[in-house]
Amino acid sequence: MKTNFTYFMPTEIIFGPGTLGKLATVKLPGKKALLVIGSGNSMRRHGYLDRVVNYLKQNGVDYVVYDKILPNPIAEHVAEGAKVAKDNGCDFVIGLGGGSTIDSSKAIAVMAKNPGDYWDYVSGGSGKGMEVKNGALPIVAIPTTAGTGTESDPWAVVTKTETNEKIGFGCKYTYPTLSIVDPELMVSIPPKFTAYQGMDAFFHSVEGYLATVNQPGSDVLALQSISLITENLPKAVADGNNMEARTALAWASTAAGIVESLSSCISHHSLEHALSAYHPEIPHGAGLIMLSVSYFSFMASKAPERFVDIAKAMGEEIVGNTVEEQAMCFINGLKKLIRNIGMEDLSLSSFGVTEDEATKLAKNAMDTMGGLFNVDPYKLSLDEVVSIYKNCF
Amino acid sequence: MKTNFTYFMPTEIIFGPGTLGKLATVKLPGKKALLVIGSGNSMRRHGYLDRVVNYLKQNGVDYVVYDKILPNPIAEHVAEGAKVAKDNGCDFVIGLGGGSTIDSSKAIAVMAKNPGDYWDYVSGGSGKGMEVKNGALPIVAIPTTAGTGTESDPWAVVTKTETNEKIGFGCKYTYPTLSIVDPELMVSIPPKFTAYQGMDAFFHSVEGYLATVNQPGSDVLALQSISLITENLPKAVADGNNMEARTALAWASTAAGIVESLSSCISHHSLEHALSAYHPEIPHGAGLIMLSVSYFSFMASKAPERFVDIAKAMGEEIVGNTVEEQAMCFINGLKKLIRNIGMEDLSLSSFGVTEDEATKLAKNAMDTMGGLFNVDPYKLSLDEVVSIYKNCF
Repeated sequence: MKTNFTYFMPTEIIFGPGTLGKLATVKLPGKKALLVIGSGNSMRRHGYLDRVVNYLKQNGVDYVVYDKILPNPIAEHVAEGAKVAKDNGCDFVIGLGGGSTIDSSKAIAVMAKNPGDYWDYVSGGSGKGMEVKNGALPIVAIPTTAGTGTESDPWAVVTKTETNEKIGFGCKYTYPTLSIVDPELMVSIPPKFTAYQGMDAFFHSVEGYLATVNQPGSDVLALQSISLITENLPKAVADGNNMEARTALAWASTAAGIVESLSSCISHHSLEHALSAYHPEIPHGAGLIMLSVSYFSFMASKAPERFVDIAKAMGEEIVGNTVEEQAMCFINGLKKLIRNIGMEDLSLSSFGVTEDEATKLAKNAMDTMGGLFNVDPYKLSLDEVVSIYKNCF
Repeated sequence: MKTNFTYFMPTEIIFGPGTLGKLATVKLPGKKALLVIGSGNSMRRHGYLDRVVNYLKQNGVDYVVYDKILPNPIAEHVAEGAKVAKDNGCDFVIGLGGGSTIDSSKAIAVMAKNPGDYWDYVSGGSGKGMEVKNGALPIVAIPTTAGTGTESDPWAVVTKTETNEKIGFGCKYTYPTLSIVDPELMVSIPPKFTAYQGMDAFFHSVEGYLATVNQPGSDVLALQSISLITENLPKAVADGNNMEARTALAWASTAAGIVESLSSCISHHSLEHALSAYHPEIPHGAGLIMLSVSYFSFMASKAPERFVDIAKAMGEEIVGNTVEEQAMCFINGLKKLIRNIGMEDLSLSSFGVTEDEATKLAKNAMDTMGGLFNVDPYKLSLDEVVSIYKNCF
């Protein structure tokens, strides 16, 4: 058991099918919200925006809608959203949608109260890593996907387009004050994205369990989440209206978010951020899946110990005489899960990525998200990262 | 899996051997602390008070010591402590010691900011259940025992002596802002109290797992904590300097506190509060142990399902063809654990409790802590509670 750590995840999470309606009565952290949604039409089309707006009215809370967030969100919209919040006197921010929207809400909440440019506060790459002195507006997260865990962690992942930097930022002010996690909002996600998002949550838990900064509280949530996703993701991909599976996945994603708060992702996520920074058409979860077999096979060969527990949580039979052999049971489980969600044919080539980008991607991963390499169970060299990319082809 | 629940435990917990020293540098929630300790001499004798005072000085924080808290803390001292805090302009409260001290700190923190009498805010018994309108002073908890979980829950258990009411009170303001859990402070606890306190934590987790308001996040922490206590409590009772066991127990207690925050204790705790309200010389943990075999044997016969998981977490082999038979494996494990910590000879009679008090105790338990009966996995009648008490003799 890890013996020295800090445990902190202050968000209040109202969880369960039908809980969106609580927005009408729950005590909210302000009187006027900047309501942030994506640039697509889905929050309007599914009626989610109307429902939220009506509940806010019932609660006596005013709002302004900001609806420009891209699937891979960019720093320009953080600055613009913060300006809208300030110009309209908003005293809190609501993020309604997927990870991109809620992550942007967190960044907007910081920039609505602090001077300068968002990238002044980002650590890594060309970010200046300045201290967030003035705190942030309170954040309410209403996820409509099960994947990022942003409802229960401080992280905001935003891309600076000029420099191809996609970096996670967070501080004690960027935990949502309140998250409402209603799995009924997730039935509208099509099978492919259900699979991508579910695997994002899966890898948060796997990586949080493997990270050297693991702690006992994150360990049990990680294994629970891994087990729930292995069982329920194939069901939700097969039938998006399976509410039991959707609910299990919603909790698994939120639990994986808590894991990210208590422990950390490892460099698998850095490698993916580099990939989708250069190829923004690659959904984050798809990128993770395409890198995962190569990445974890190498990592398991170098630091096998904790992989055995993960394989057990996936329901894999543990075979092999040595821990190195046993660790490979996870790779079998991972391949099986990828097959069970219909993702065995995903390939980097089909997204236009070429093998000769490997060095460029490896350097970007280590430059912009180098911090995660420091909590890897085995310290990767640049050459090893290049090989991991090349082995994906 | 439970599908509707609220997850909330906002305390920042700095955990690990040697972490008390962080008090010198960590950001504290004020500039002048009311430093609450027990009426005994142990915080001074072990040098803990001196260390805390020196760290506060290094941190530029002023303090006033309030040192009257009794092992079974009383409402009079809550009022007095709050007056000392107000008279001295303290802007936060530090509780250093066991559960009694930290619980009292929470109650003092409330009464330093709210008018009237503490019992006005208590729910149950003769408490008036009034709303805590003004919040509370921030609370810093520094536990020197592993048992109550008060470092990671909102609960304060205080007795009103005139009416023999020992009631738990808590609200969103009574979670500590910061807890420093340093297992090195726990080596001074003698074997008998190590056993009592460890079993208090054990029952928090067992009860939190059984309560109808369980949730997936509390489930995994409860089972982890049960497993750690079963393995490590006998070791720490045998050798108080076993730091590995002390550290495991410290986390198990903190995890069980989180379980109490997310789920709830059940009426086993109500029955014990009635017992030690009338017999304040009975340590809380001893009372729980003496009631436990009778209480859980009855409960397992009525609502066996979740007992099987607990027995597994204790490492018990699951035998029996029906779930009722399998549930009894927990009772075997419980009796074994009680033997392994040398507590098999504890008896209510030796504390002067007589069988003819059963009805009085049952009524007190249901009157003052009736809320916990509402989350029992089986709804107990007064007659059944009387029988549970009588079967302890």
